[in-house]
Amino acid sequence: MKSLRIEPLAGYTPTIGRLVCVLAYARQTLLAAVEGLSREDLDHLHDARSNSIGALLAHAAAVERWYQALTFEDRELSASEAATWSAALELGDEGRRQLRGREPHSYVDELAGTRKVTLAALAKRDDAWLERPLAAAPELNAHWAWFHVAEDEINHRGQIRWLRARLH
Amino acid sequence: MKSLRIEPLAGYTPTIGRLVCVLAYARQTLLAAVEGLSREDLDHLHDARSNSIGALLAHAAAVERWYQALTFEDRELSASEAATWSAALELGDEGRRQLRGREPHSYVDELAGTRKVTLAALAKRDDAWLERPLAAAPELNAHWAWFHVAEDEINHRGQIRWLRARLH
Repeated sequence: MKSLRIEPLAGYTPTIGRLVCVLAYARQTLLAAVEGLSREDLDHLHDARSNSIGALLAHAAAVERWYQALTFEDRELSASEAATWSAALELGDEGRRQLRGREPHSYVDELAGTRKVTLAALAKRDDAWLERPLAAAPELNAHWAWFHVAEDEINHRGQIRWLRARLH
Repeated sequence: MKSLRIEPLAGYTPTIGRLVCVLAYARQTLLAAVEGLSREDLDHLHDARSNSIGALLAHAAAVERWYQALTFEDRELSASEAATWSAALELGDEGRRQLRGREPHSYVDELAGTRKVTLAALAKRDDAWLERPLAAAPELNAHWAWFHVAEDEINHRGQIRWLRARLH
C-alpha cells in the first residue's frame, strides 16, 4: 500500500526521510502505471515521435544514475557513462532505435538496483548535505536534485498513463 | 528564473518553506509549458478521449481548491462546491463539454488567485501542522496532501508537453 504521509523515516535524517517518502511514492506510482504490460506494450510507439513506455522506464533509471554521480560523487557523467546512457537520457530517435525488445522485468530490476544505491547513499548523508549547493552544479542543491529525479519520473508517469490508456 | 534549490523560505516555517519551493517549481514549469498558447490551442482535443490543455489547467486549480478545503478547513468539498468543480476535478466527458472557450489568461488568473490563498494559509501554519494527519482524511498528512497537489500538476504537465508538441 502506498504511504500517504510525508514524514521523517527511520534510518535517515529528518528532511532526507521526507524526501525518501517522495521518491518512494513516485516510484510506487510509476510501477503501478506499468504493471502487467507485455514486452510488446512496452515497445509500442504511439506515433512516430513518441517514446515507448519501456524507453520512459529506462529514462527514469538513467536520470537517477546521472543524479547519483552529480550528488554523491560530485561529478558529471564520464564520457563512457554518457555514451552508455545517452539513448535513455535523451530519448528521441536513438531511444526509439536502442530501447526496445527488453523483457518487462529488466526495466523493473534496473530501477530497483538503481534505487538501492540511492537509498544507501542517502542513509549515509545528513540534512546539512541535502541543502548544500552541489560541487558539480552549484546552482542546484542536493534536495532540488533529488526532488527533480522524482519530478521527472512523475512527469513521464503522466505520459505513460496517457499512452497506456491508448495501447489496445 | 526557476529556483533550483529546495530550502527554507522567509515567511514560512522550515519544512513548509521547502514545500513551497516544490509547489512554486511545479507551477513555474506548468505555466512555461503553456506559455503562448492560443484559445484554440487550449481547447484542442488530440483524440476523442483526450483532455484539452485548458481542461488540465482548470484541473490543477480545482485540485488545489479541494486540498485547501481538506487541509485548511478540515472538510471535504460541500455539495455545491463539488458540483461547481466536478468537471475540472473529474475531467472526461463533462470536462470536454464544459471546459472550453475560455481566454488563456482566465486559466492563469484562476491558478494565481488559488495559489495566493494557499500561500497565505501556509504562512500561518507550522511544521507540526504539516506533519499531522488530516482531520478530514486521517490516512494522509498535510505534507503529503500538498506534495500531491504539486505531483498531480507535474503528472499533467507531462501530458501537456506531449500534447503541445503535437498541436500543429
